[in-house]
Amino acid sequence: MSEAEDQIRALIDERIAAIRGKDAARAIATLADDVVAFELAPPLAIDAKKARDREAFEKWLTGFDTIDVEVRDLKIEADGDVGFAHALHHLTGTRPGDRKVSLWVRSTLGLKRVGGTWKIAHAHTSVPFHMDGSFRAAVGLRP
Amino acid sequence: MSEAEDQIRALIDERIAAIRGKDAARAIATLADDVVAFELAPPLAIDAKKARDREAFEKWLTGFDTIDVEVRDLKIEADGDVGFAHALHHLTGTRPGDRKVSLWVRSTLGLKRVGGTWKIAHAHTSVPFHMDGSFRAAVGLRP
Repeated sequence: MSEAEDQIRALIDERIAAIRGKDAARAIATLADDVVAFELAPPLAIDAKKARDREAFEKWLTGFDTIDVEVRDLKIEADGDVGFAHALHHLTGTRPGDRKVSLWVRSTLGLKRVGGTWKIAHAHTSVPFHMDGSFRAAVGLRP
Repeated sequence: MSEAEDQIRALIDERIAAIRGKDAARAIATLADDVVAFELAPPLAIDAKKARDREAFEKWLTGFDTIDVEVRDLKIEADGDVGFAHALHHLTGTRPGDRKVSLWVRSTLGLKRVGGTWKIAHAHTSVPFHMDGSFRAAVGLRP
């Protein structure tokens, strides 16, 4: 494990700690100024202005009473000031009314070192969809 | 545009040319030996053995009479022997019976230079899904 890989792992931990603490500003601080995100929900892509919108992120977080992310099968590659990481994330929590959330998603990050600090320059989060003609998102998968 | 970015762009072009030519072996040659892929269809992830399975890839290709991929909003970052790339891909073609295919997907690649040659070490392809309770994959989006 190189120093860069350690730092990227710490960045991922920091982002998850921010989400767990429902701290939108802290989560957004892990994103590069020019981040491009491919999210679970449409549209296909969002630019930095939307990805770094604190009010929108706070609104998403307030949809949860509790929220947590477990990271599995994390692989990090980095050289110089560029890296990427991929993992499976288990998003769990409760929504108002004690509705349980449990969703496994795929997470890929593109990373850049900016002014000595690693930032998320690209985030791609998704679930696959069933190819049985239903076009239903496969939200019940487990690794 | 650095030399590495040029080489990565050429690798992406090579993969698409292979798909357009329905040449599974040529497409698989763009993948690293230890590639991990997050594909449009379940499961969540596939390992190199499955991602590099020529017969399975040929079977997928034979589902098309013609197939093409248009790349839009491609962004490449690379340093040393590691890079990542993300883009929107417009998958078009015809299936037997003259059924038209037209699907915009998000594509993220993690790249490594192995023995002097850039390879795809990670590929994440997806569409988002509708958050209206239907859980339907958003297969009708355009950038």
